[in-house]
Amino acid sequence: ESRLPGSATHQIGVAGAVVDESNGKVLVVQDRNKTKNAWKFPGGLSDPGENIGATAVREVFEETGVHAEFRSLLSIRQQHNHPGAFGMSDMYMICRLGPLTYDINFCTRECLRCEWLDLAELAKTDDTTPITSRVARLLLHGLEHGFNKIDLSMEELPAVYSGRFYQLYHRQLPPTLKS
Amino acid sequence: ESRLPGSATHQIGVAGAVVDESNGKVLVVQDRNKTKNAWKFPGGLSDPGENIGATAVREVFEETGVHAEFRSLLSIRQQHNHPGAFGMSDMYMICRLGPLTYDINFCTRECLRCEWLDLAELAKTDDTTPITSRVARLLLHGLEHGFNKIDLSMEELPAVYSGRFYQLYHRQLPPTLKS
Repeated sequence: ESRLPGSATHQIGVAGAVVDESNGKVLVVQDRNKTKNAWKFPGGLSDPGENIGATAVREVFEETGVHAEFRSLLSIRQQHNHPGAFGMSDMYMICRLGPLTYDINFCTRECLRCEWLDLAELAKTDDTTPITSRVARLLLHGLEHGFNKIDLSMEELPAVYSGRFYQLYHRQLPPTLKS
Repeated sequence: ESRLPGSATHQIGVAGAVVDESNGKVLVVQDRNKTKNAWKFPGGLSDPGENIGATAVREVFEETGVHAEFRSLLSIRQQHNHPGAFGMSDMYMICRLGPLTYDINFCTRECLRCEWLDLAELAKTDDTTPITSRVARLLLHGLEHGFNKIDLSMEELPAVYSGRFYQLYHRQLPPTLKS
């Protein structure tokens, strides 16, 4: 890495795709103020110092009232000169979450609608964004063939600097190669 | 996503693991000013507006003199309160690159050593960092069983806003689910 300190160039956005494996449904919302009639995964910007998974869990709860837990990282989008980001670049991460509760109590200030939608329906509808559609197909593949086909798993590891930890995401290694 | 604009909280660092598939070697460096005797993948901070893959290719060339091309994203590390990052958080991405040239002409200002090292040796040596060791094992698995086991592939897609593109990374979908 460069020896010169850099500056912060990216904001981090995180969405959570909460998948109910028992029935193949996923939790989606329609924004009140953005793209009309487009189903999306709930999400928002990371707070300073907040881990990716924590942002996903927090935003899902704030928007939908559903409690969920982090399972994996699925997709990353990098975008520059994003409108509304005022010169910053944007790193948008989509995580897979598992539901802990199921009752929807959505935030009417942010969302027009919130539903548990069939993944197969989300994968083929036009009422969504291209990235949501893509991830729906990825999740459908995972539901049918195992989420290990699509997941990046996370591990928390101690940094070289004492008392600090970092979170590392990559494809799961076979047990023989793990340590 | 939240309706309020955020602020940039993260710097983006990128390393490039250049793998020579013909002999199982990978391009590694030892920093002049950092951890002693630790083999690492060459890398550094993204310039504003620069894509992940472009940073990897640029940094590999600047540090080692080797030309390479982007193949996939392998791993992501998120770290907060990183020493030297002055309150920023750090997102560190490791990419897999393919070599276009092989002759080493390394930057003596940044590096003490630079070599094509056996992946198997990098995976088991103590003279490396934990994250490099982990990714070496991941690459070894990929070399033996196909890189499609470990890769996130990249696609450039048009944004909803005209004239802009974003880069999307995720596990490759089977052809039937692609569009």
